[in-house]
Amino acid sequence: MSYQLLETHHRRLSRFRHLEAIASWDEATMMAPQGGAERGEALATLRGYLHGQSTLPALGEWLAAASQDERNLDPWQRANLREMRREWRRATALGQDLVEAMALAESRSEQAWRKLRPANDFAGFLPLFRDVVRLKREAAQALGQELGLDPYDALMDGFEPGLRTPTISALFARLRAFLTPLIPRAVELQRSEPMETSQGSFSEERQRWLGTELMRRLGFDFARGRLDTSHHPFCGGVPSDVRITTRYDRADYTKSMMSVIHETGHAKYEQNLPARWIGQPVANPRGMSIHEGQSLFFEMQVGRSRPFTDVLASLLAQAFPDQPSRIFAPENLFRHLTRVEPGLIRVNADEVTYPCHIILRFELERALIEGRLEPEDVPEAWNAAMKDLLGLSTAGNDRDGCMQDVHWPAGLFGYFPAYTLGALTAAQLFQAAQRPLPELTLQIRRGDLASLDDWLRTNVWSQASFLLTDDLVTRATGKSLDTVAFEQHLEARYLRREQ
Amino acid sequence: MSYQLLETHHRRLSRFRHLEAIASWDEATMMAPQGGAERGEALATLRGYLHGQSTLPALGEWLAAASQDERNLDPWQRANLREMRREWRRATALGQDLVEAMALAESRSEQAWRKLRPANDFAGFLPLFRDVVRLKREAAQALGQELGLDPYDALMDGFEPGLRTPTISALFARLRAFLTPLIPRAVELQRSEPMETSQGSFSEERQRWLGTELMRRLGFDFARGRLDTSHHPFCGGVPSDVRITTRYDRADYTKSMMSVIHETGHAKYEQNLPARWIGQPVANPRGMSIHEGQSLFFEMQVGRSRPFTDVLASLLAQAFPDQPSRIFAPENLFRHLTRVEPGLIRVNADEVTYPCHIILRFELERALIEGRLEPEDVPEAWNAAMKDLLGLSTAGNDRDGCMQDVHWPAGLFGYFPAYTLGALTAAQLFQAAQRPLPELTLQIRRGDLASLDDWLRTNVWSQASFLLTDDLVTRATGKSLDTVAFEQHLEARYLRREQ
Repeated sequence: MSYQLLETHHRRLSRFRHLEAIASWDEATMMAPQGGAERGEALATLRGYLHGQSTLPALGEWLAAASQDERNLDPWQRANLREMRREWRRATALGQDLVEAMALAESRSEQAWRKLRPANDFAGFLPLFRDVVRLKREAAQALGQELGLDPYDALMDGFEPGLRTPTISALFARLRAFLTPLIPRAVELQRSEPMETSQGSFSEERQRWLGTELMRRLGFDFARGRLDTSHHPFCGGVPSDVRITTRYDRADYTKSMMSVIHETGHAKYEQNLPARWIGQPVANPRGMSIHEGQSLFFEMQVGRSRPFTDVLASLLAQAFPDQPSRIFAPENLFRHLTRVEPGLIRVNADEVTYPCHIILRFELERALIEGRLEPEDVPEAWNAAMKDLLGLSTAGNDRDGCMQDVHWPAGLFGYFPAYTLGALTAAQLFQAAQRPLPELTLQIRRGDLASLDDWLRTNVWSQASFLLTDDLVTRATGKSLDTVAFEQHLEARYLRREQ
Repeated sequence: MSYQLLETHHRRLSRFRHLEAIASWDEATMMAPQGGAERGEALATLRGYLHGQSTLPALGEWLAAASQDERNLDPWQRANLREMRREWRRATALGQDLVEAMALAESRSEQAWRKLRPANDFAGFLPLFRDVVRLKREAAQALGQELGLDPYDALMDGFEPGLRTPTISALFARLRAFLTPLIPRAVELQRSEPMETSQGSFSEERQRWLGTELMRRLGFDFARGRLDTSHHPFCGGVPSDVRITTRYDRADYTKSMMSVIHETGHAKYEQNLPARWIGQPVANPRGMSIHEGQSLFFEMQVGRSRPFTDVLASLLAQAFPDQPSRIFAPENLFRHLTRVEPGLIRVNADEVTYPCHIILRFELERALIEGRLEPEDVPEAWNAAMKDLLGLSTAGNDRDGCMQDVHWPAGLFGYFPAYTLGALTAAQLFQAAQRPLPELTLQIRRGDLASLDDWLRTNVWSQASFLLTDDLVTRATGKSLDTVAFEQHLEARYLRREQ
């Protein structure tokens, strides 16, 4: 009875979240330049209403009564109840005052950052950043107390339930030890590789054709989704209508092409969530590292693989018939798409150096939340870590250093690890999928992803939030997440130049 | 104090309505084919919430208290209070059961109509239509009782406050007497007019360019709005981001061109509502006949006028440089855009025969609501009226007869008169605007609409719902709405072939 009341309540909430998803997508893709103020107010009002509805005292009573009665629920209902409880505990852990103060500080800081980053003005940003960090420390403390977790873990748990600092520290330490010698070897090896670079201009219209065609090949369901343009690529919308975006650079078609493949990975997860449970918390994607695991599965394990460059090569020749054919020769394309080059900017990083950007952010943001690092000392700490990890300096260049990402200005602490956990997850899932699918490489070369999709649908997508993250990965791959598959993948691709 | 509570409440409601507007626009323009079921549920949940919030008992108390205190309010606040009271009385007049039964019957009937109309299947439609009419009669009765109005007037009052059947009957009787001899004379006159017809295909991309350029010339503010494609053209969105749509017929560029001008008229009203009051009921457009008055002002008074064809001619030559130049000669274009031809379909009708379609619907829907006509007798009554008004038969052709419009299947009774009242309003406003603007014809020929916009902004747009409809028209034009300006306009354009 109480459980049924909870299902009805969550179904109703999901309908308001549907409107939030569409209005947010619209804001990033369609909204007229001066529509922002009214849209901001409308979304803030909706979010306030949703927060109120998520913390109703009646929910606490229903949750307690439903838990008493748990033996009458089937396994999916029990998992749904667990997720409802999780949402409710997180929503009620923070006082309304703190929630509103954070929303205000984060919105101010993010807006200021948009102007201060291009101006390389960390001093101007510092007072706003201090406010964000102060309030986030307070929230992490309160959440941690409620959930029985360390403050930083309490934040991280919001993005990836169950993941804890000791696990990540161990994974990242091993990864760092592995990457430190690998990076210079990979760079050295590529120095002697011949590579033809494309010239000229790639029209937006042809790039859009290419992206759409790739989505079709990768199994994106256009009856339940679409592709549009936005300043930063993202995957939004709702499971019945998944909206992915990209942006077009006329000088470099690979940017839109690879971002479309990446977002299609996210989209396929959303499009294949269990229809029976849509609208209930148990039907939500499991967490950010699993979500990123899907996008990186398609971008890194499939999209940039040597077999898949055969598919890309033939599509590219169709998309851009004016380019000389040697540019799109599969081998040349593969070299292009697997180039390693240490750089300052995370979002431009290749898959070998990317984890270094994440290790740096994980260490710094943990220290910030735990009070071991103060906001004013971030630029120096960033520069030191960057020299240490990639041998590059950001001294006097905070624009391309600690100010490069929107995450901290927007109050997103505890999110960064998910990117690299996603890379590890993608590699481990891909390795596991190869065991029952001996023809996989051949299928990928032909662009036939049907059996791969079946495997992912069974093991990941249809599971949604039924299992906890570690259980999901263990059931799918036979073991907890580790770095082995990712390391083997990097060695094969970047030292032996296979796969 | 109570008044302030009401303002806060309505501001909050307007933010939810913002989300409704965007999600509805998205449904018609962007939504993926299979996104409809979830979208329908999300919008139904939102509308249920809005109805609940619009009928809160506290509102009745606040309205009573604020009315007591009305002398402390300024004139706009008093008008705002009047509009709030109006909304509340209409929202609370109907029981929740009846509201839900109507929503269900109308949604079923509209969905069935989409398939039954092309099949010309009135018999299949009849049971659904009976339900809609039965419930609408009940609602009209209840609303009429609450508002002290005849049932049909109570429905019409929801679209155009203050308009009553006797006024409309008198206007329509006069109009009918005027049009009956005019139509054959206009047709006869045009028989001998030479007219070159365009050939070939007009690409969607060039039509879109033309539409966008026209919107710019007509003063549409692209910083606060956009143009998209949908099955039926409409004007939606919110005042800070007005969304108009059109559709493209490759064989006939005039359809998208004229619908863009029409919707731009609606959009300019929305974009020029008083910023200070946005979010309050007094800032809503006055009513559907005033709204239609703005779209027809731009489409009929300006857009198809002889002076404006000079502007269109030069844009068309740019848009379609492959067409022979004589096609876009201003005189040829004018003849094309002012062709009179009696036909069965309202939405394809020219401005001379259009009122006949409305007079027919007004008579029939009033009889339906008042119980003087039964649903099963509609096809026969329609055919008789059509023969009488335009000399055309719809016997056995209900698809192009009583089943042609979405309005009745969707439960919209009392709306149709607004189209022709809009045409009268547009003509009367245009005549009034010419008095202080002696250069107007010259300005229109140059495509310079600045002073015309100023006049409309001052007299109509910025007034929003501050005045009642009759007061608005009287202040702007010096008299209540009548047929004189419209008749003079039709005589000049269709008998003397001027303007």
